[in-house]
This record gives sequence, structure tokens and C-alpha cells, in this order.
Amino acid sequence: MKTPSTAVEPSPHTVRYDQLHRFVVEALRRAGLSETDAKTGADVLATTDAWGVFTHGTKLLRGYLRRLKAGGLRADARPEIIRQGPAWAVVNGQSALAMVTSVLAMRTAIAKAKICGIAYVGVRNSCHYGAAGYYSSLAADEGLIGLSMANDVPSVAAPGSRGAVTGSNPISYAVPAGKHRSILLDMSVATVAGGKVYAARTRGETIPNTWLVGTDGKPTTDPSGYPQVGALQPAAGHKGYGIALLIETLAGVISGASVTWQVGNWLWDDGTKPTDHGAAFIAIDVNTIMPAAEFTRRIEALVDEIHAAPRAEGVERIFVPGEMEWERHARATREGIPLPSDVVESLRDSATMAGLKLEDYL
Amino acid sequence: MKTPSTAVEPSPHTVRYDQLHRFVVEALRRAGLSETDAKTGADVLATTDAWGVFTHGTKLLRGYLRRLKAGGLRADARPEIIRQGPAWAVVNGQSALAMVTSVLAMRTAIAKAKICGIAYVGVRNSCHYGAAGYYSSLAADEGLIGLSMANDVPSVAAPGSRGAVTGSNPISYAVPAGKHRSILLDMSVATVAGGKVYAARTRGETIPNTWLVGTDGKPTTDPSGYPQVGALQPAAGHKGYGIALLIETLAGVISGASVTWQVGNWLWDDGTKPTDHGAAFIAIDVNTIMPAAEFTRRIEALVDEIHAAPRAEGVERIFVPGEMEWERHARATREGIPLPSDVVESLRDSATMAGLKLEDYL
Repeated sequence: MKTPSTAVEPSPHTVRYDQLHRFVVEALRRAGLSETDAKTGADVLATTDAWGVFTHGTKLLRGYLRRLKAGGLRADARPEIIRQGPAWAVVNGQSALAMVTSVLAMRTAIAKAKICGIAYVGVRNSCHYGAAGYYSSLAADEGLIGLSMANDVPSVAAPGSRGAVTGSNPISYAVPAGKHRSILLDMSVATVAGGKVYAARTRGETIPNTWLVGTDGKPTTDPSGYPQVGALQPAAGHKGYGIALLIETLAGVISGASVTWQVGNWLWDDGTKPTDHGAAFIAIDVNTIMPAAEFTRRIEALVDEIHAAPRAEGVERIFVPGEMEWERHARATREGIPLPSDVVESLRDSATMAGLKLEDYL
Repeated sequence: MKTPSTAVEPSPHTVRYDQLHRFVVEALRRAGLSETDAKTGADVLATTDAWGVFTHGTKLLRGYLRRLKAGGLRADARPEIIRQGPAWAVVNGQSALAMVTSVLAMRTAIAKAKICGIAYVGVRNSCHYGAAGYYSSLAADEGLIGLSMANDVPSVAAPGSRGAVTGSNPISYAVPAGKHRSILLDMSVATVAGGKVYAARTRGETIPNTWLVGTDGKPTTDPSGYPQVGALQPAAGHKGYGIALLIETLAGVISGASVTWQVGNWLWDDGTKPTDHGAAFIAIDVNTIMPAAEFTRRIEALVDEIHAAPRAEGVERIFVPGEMEWERHARATREGIPLPSDVVESLRDSATMAGLKLEDYL
């Protein structure tokens, strides 16, 4: 078992968080968003880059700007709570930028959980919401346990299916951990991200036979047709598939959003039309259920115990979920964010679309 | 990808559900439980057998009877709600049979969710609770989405650990599905059940290198020392490990139960002492959040869509989670439950302990 590394490649494009943030704010402002909404979008995307999760950070801005321009995302939309009760709500995103809708939804869940102990907020008429972990993390920042999940256009097979049946359906949770940074898991239900399959294709490599099924629905080591051909395999087979359906139910079915093939592809489908993604946010208020000091003592002990667990040969550390991301975040705060070149290239496109000069910011 | 089969081996020990149920009730009555509590225990264990999940059904009765006799499980204990709010509660199991505590906890979650939309109930001072899916299923029977999870003594490694770090921590959800039986997933966070490793050891076979880590913490194909030597690998690596820690948090940390190595081994540790397992139950009331008819239409459409999805070569059906279990349940209701011989052997021990003749019942 290989120890994951927190080391990052040296990058010629190391930028300060506030510089990157300001660029995203300005680009979204030019696309018509209010200052407040633009800042929300920038908070999500720049934080995701600071975690080192570059696949889901500011690299995606380009795609959001395109949809804002085409009208499928509405710059002036106001997401609203359309139904609610003591510990639940349903939010209609009104095709606003999904970060704006998702932050409203998680803040609503947090507020209700502080009164009731736990709360669920479902979201409809949203879009691709970036990194699931940003929203669960909002809850942990306030001392609550947060869960965040979303559906998406199908890309993952079910056991026995020939093609995709569910989305890669991200799910994240965050747990406040006292002296430690919050425990933070952010995962998809597929064995690997589609990007890894695509990267292998680009490099002309074969892939492990647990990543993809081919046109016959059987495991394949050939990524050469992806993503046009093949579907990702669910992580741990029926387990990943089962979790995908739970997410589809909570994020899509009971929120009133689109489900599976009705969800729009936010990158490739007609940009003038809403994608109608669904999402779900759950907050659990630790302080309501157990005295804060007792919880802190108990969760710190759990993390300390894991850190002290005997290690396999050659392994230097055992990480709790999110620990690598938080260490990258701390380093990014001190030393800047080392943007990979594909992110810089995407930001350059974003600048062009927004009528900005990237050099004025980064 | 192999299609799972719903076929069951013909068994010389096919018994009627009501016969098996009556035997379990009587054995638990002899151990000192009230008629009501004994029936609750029998409901859980006999239903689990009817689902064909024989590893977690009446085979376990023997172990529970042993603990009831030794005093670590208390036959006359009354689990009680020790703290609660609008959408949450904490139940102290008082070392009662875990099925009694767990059913009370899930029923409490259901009642609160019907008022608030969602509810969480944590459990402390419980024991091994059998099949997680029984409790989530209780919620689905009443039209709610149910989640059920529990911690246990560590048996599963973390990425990079030499030995076990978390329990196999079962998690289950159930979603009512209109004309279909409820969607029902019941999984552990390990790649496979320890029983499968042990079975390979018994047969002298090697195992896939994704199941177990050896004493050096590295993947091994040699099960010969298990369970004394080695730890199960988490399903999908950091994903299974991450979910294990979420379960540990919700079932163990905030419920006030024991956590990881503090949890007692219900089979092997001192039978006179409580194991102090934790558990968590969440119910979400579909009817509160979305009109029942609309939800039913949407969830039926999702199941129908999966059933109709293109299949891989040689695959006859694509199953939704729980479908195989429900089909076995229907067959068991018609034709009886085909008990494997190891279950019958265990029941014979239970009969001896309870001073009953198995033949008088089955």
C-alpha cells in the first residue's frame, strides 16, 4: 500500500489566494453576478485550489462563464426556499450559479440543525456545484457535522449494466475535530475519476481492469475510446452503486430535481438550457447532542489514535480524511497556490471571455 | 462481471418463518426476556434469515444467549431515551439485547422525523445489533427513508496501517419504492466479510490481494492466519476507510458509546461485561418533504429505468440493492427458509442452552 504524498510539484504559476480570488470575483462580476454572489463563487473555487483539488477549482470557471453567457445559468437568479419545515427545506436554485445555491442551502441546514439537532435541505434546478467538500466544510467550521452530495448525468455503470446508470454522484462529510483540522472526505462513487482514465488515454497507457467497462459492459484495460465509449466502474462494485442510488434519492428524487439521464451535461449540453442538477445537504449540530467539550475530547482522541496506529512497512504516516488537503491549504496560505499549467490555461480562457487580462491579477 | 444469482442451494433444513420465529422467542424467553422483547429479537433474526443473510440471522442467537447467561447482556434491561430534542435523541441501551434497543431507537427516529422531516437517534451501551438493514427497513415500511449504522471492535485497516483501525462498521439504507419492494443496501466498509476470508482459510485456498493485509500491513493472498493474524482491507481504500470514520463519529463519538478499541468483542471478550457498542439511526420523512404520490412516481421511474438499462453480455438482470433479498424473502414466505447446516448446528446449541428441543419447533 503506497503512502499518499502531500508533496506538490513545483509550479511556475504560484499565485496568492487573494489574487486568484479577486480574479474569479471580477470575472463573475463581468458575467453579471452581484458582488456577493461573485464572492461566493470565488470562495468555493479558490478554496478548492488551495486544497490542491485542481480538477474542481478555478479550472471550472471557464465552463460556468460559458453557461452564464449562454443563459443556462442565470447571473441575476435568486435561489429561494420553496418549501420548509422545522428540520428541512427544499431550495429552488432558479438556475443560479450552483455555488450560490449550495451555500444558501447548507447555511439553511446549519441554522435549522442548531435548533432541531439535525436538518436536511434538498436542492433542485441547480448545476454542477464544484467540490462537494466545500459545503460540508462550512458546517464543520461552525462546529457541526456536515454532509453534502449531488447527482449528475450518468457516467458510472451498475453491476451488470452495459453503460452508465448513475452519475459519479459526489458525497462529502466534514466533522469538526478540535485541535485538528476537520475530518473531511470528498469522494465520488466511481472507482476513479474520469479524468484519470482520460489522462491514461492521452498518455497511450492501459488502465487497471477495475476502472472502466467497455461497450460490451465488461471490464476493460483500454481507455482509448473514453469518454465517448465506456462507463466508469462503481467503487467496490455493488457498494459504490448502492451509495450512488442513495445520493440519487436524497439529492435528486426527493428534492424534485432531475434524475439520472434527465440531468443536463453542464459542459457539453445546450448552454442555453438549465441542467437541473439536484443536491442534498445535511447538518448535525454536535453541540446540541453532546456537550462541546466532551465531543472535542472524544473526536481528538479518535484522530490521535489513528495517527499513532502501527504502520505498514515503508509508510510514514496514517492520514485521516482531509488531512492532506488541509496541509496543502496551509502551505498555499503561506507560499501561494501552485497552479498546474492546465488550470492556468483555463484561467486564460476565462479572462478572455470576461474581457480581463490575467496578468493584471495573477 | 458476474451476475449475482438469487438461486439458493436446496437445503434439507427448510423451515417455516413462524416456526423459526417461535423457537427464537421461546429461547429468549427462557433467557429471561419479556414476551415483547423476545418477539422483537425474533423479528430481527428470523427476517434476516428470510432475506437469505444467514451470517447475521438466527445463527447469532447462540452468542446472544451466552451473553445473556453471563450477564453482559441484561435480560430485564429497559433501554431509555436519556436526552432528546425536536429531531434527535440519545438512547442508553442499558446492555439490553441490541435488537430491542435498536428498534426503540429507529421507532423514535421515525416518530420525530414525521414531525420534523428528519431525525437522528444515537445509541450507547448497546451490543452487536445483527443486520443493519432490518432497522432501515422499518423506516421504509412506514414510507420513510431509513439509515442505520453501528460501530464494532476494529477489524479493518486504514490505508497504510499495519493492523485494524476501525470496525467493519455496517451501514444500511432503505428507500420505500412504491410498487417495488424498498431499495435496501446493507454493507460493511471492508472489501469482503471476514467470514469469506475464514472460509477460504478453511478450504485451504488463497484469496485475492484486495481482501486482507498481513502482519506487515501489506496486501496478502494468504488467509491461513486469519482472524488472529491480519486485518481486512477497507472497500475501495480511502473511500471505505473514510465512510468507516463517518460511522464511527455518528454511531460512536456523538452517541457517547465506546469507540474503536474500547468496544467489546461481543463473541470473544468477557461475557459478564457490556460491550458498549454504539449505533446511529436516521429517518427522513418523504411525505413531509414531497407529496407521497409524486415521490412514488419518481422512485418507481428510477427503479424501472435501472431494470431496463442495457445489460452486459451474459447478464440477465440488473438488480437494485435489496432486490435479491426481497425475492428470497418472498420465496421463504411461500416455501420456507432453507437454513444452511451451520445455522442448524448453531440453533441446536441455542436449544441446548435454553433447555429446549429443536425438534419441537423446526
